[in-house]
Amino acid sequence: MSASTHLDRLIQALQIQPGVGPRAAARIAYYLLGRRREDAQALGQILIDAMDKIQLCSCCRNYCDDEVCALCSDPKRRESGQLCVVESPADVAAIEQSQNYKGRYFVLHGHLSPIDGIGANELGLPLLDGILATGNVTELILATNPTIEGDATAAYIAQLAKRYEVGTITKIASGVPLGGALDNIDQKTLLNAIANRRPWE
Amino acid sequence: MSASTHLDRLIQALQIQPGVGPRAAARIAYYLLGRRREDAQALGQILIDAMDKIQLCSCCRNYCDDEVCALCSDPKRRESGQLCVVESPADVAAIEQSQNYKGRYFVLHGHLSPIDGIGANELGLPLLDGILATGNVTELILATNPTIEGDATAAYIAQLAKRYEVGTITKIASGVPLGGALDNIDQKTLLNAIANRRPWE
Repeated sequence: MSASTHLDRLIQALQIQPGVGPRAAARIAYYLLGRRREDAQALGQILIDAMDKIQLCSCCRNYCDDEVCALCSDPKRRESGQLCVVESPADVAAIEQSQNYKGRYFVLHGHLSPIDGIGANELGLPLLDGILATGNVTELILATNPTIEGDATAAYIAQLAKRYEVGTITKIASGVPLGGALDNIDQKTLLNAIANRRPWE
Repeated sequence: MSASTHLDRLIQALQIQPGVGPRAAARIAYYLLGRRREDAQALGQILIDAMDKIQLCSCCRNYCDDEVCALCSDPKRRESGQLCVVESPADVAAIEQSQNYKGRYFVLHGHLSPIDGIGANELGLPLLDGILATGNVTELILATNPTIEGDATAAYIAQLAKRYEVGTITKIASGVPLGGALDNIDQKTLLNAIANRRPWE
């Protein structure tokens, strides 16, 4: 409880952000009030606009400002014939930052989880089905997270894709991350990396 | 660069918060978009309102919603005759949480720092001067931070107060924090705690 209701409300509201607890929220509130009032008002307006305007691309379900996102509208990406299925929009951003992949994406916004009521419809699989049915996909890349749920979701989608003329179905490699020291890597990853060893090229 | 200008702008704007870098900002943005859109819009409006409405109490310079804050309006606190000078509104909140002090406050919003152009006027000392001149202050408690700048500011204010009929001028104790292990405490604090030892009661 401070001397200002607005301040109390602000400290409370800031805590909806992951990783921001009561102490961090208070620190942020005092800092913004003391030194960045105009920037904080701008942030307020940007938050309101973003939550109002950002929608799902009708083609790939990534976050975008229009009906169809810039990646889906790009004819070069369409022509590539590659379609990469990921769990979240953050995954698209991460793959785009690696600056090599030049195909399209499909964003599931989660993974299959019957216990939470997340099934094929919640992941937009009817939409993916429609894209696969066009016959324009030459390679379907499954890039769900390397977890039990992610793998199960990938397996389900692979099954779905087999009904159509999809050139190849691939799965991104899992194994030891580059630059890591082997003795720092968890046993399951190491076990999996040895089991999936490849011939020396 | 994501597929949404609104999203890029949001990730950028979130970084005005101390402790929130590009990665944390992206994580927050994706989380709010995916699961807390309504709460995030509410946060946006609260930010705008707070930055617009929160002002400085005309009496103690603490953040408040009205002309005079609740603490200054409280007749019991006025009657106590105690006035505690602190550097920031966060200090008031911290002292209030300790639930023992029942006097009034005066918030400097910083400390004397001639090199940054922060002098007596920036700290509201003419206002403090007016309060001391009323003769209603029986004890002036100097609770600036135990730093070189904080101590210098306290010394300046003590000098100011000596011109008026202030009952007593005190300074909050500095020394080893309760519950701490002596071997974890920095040498300066320990040196100071030994130099300022008190007779056993």
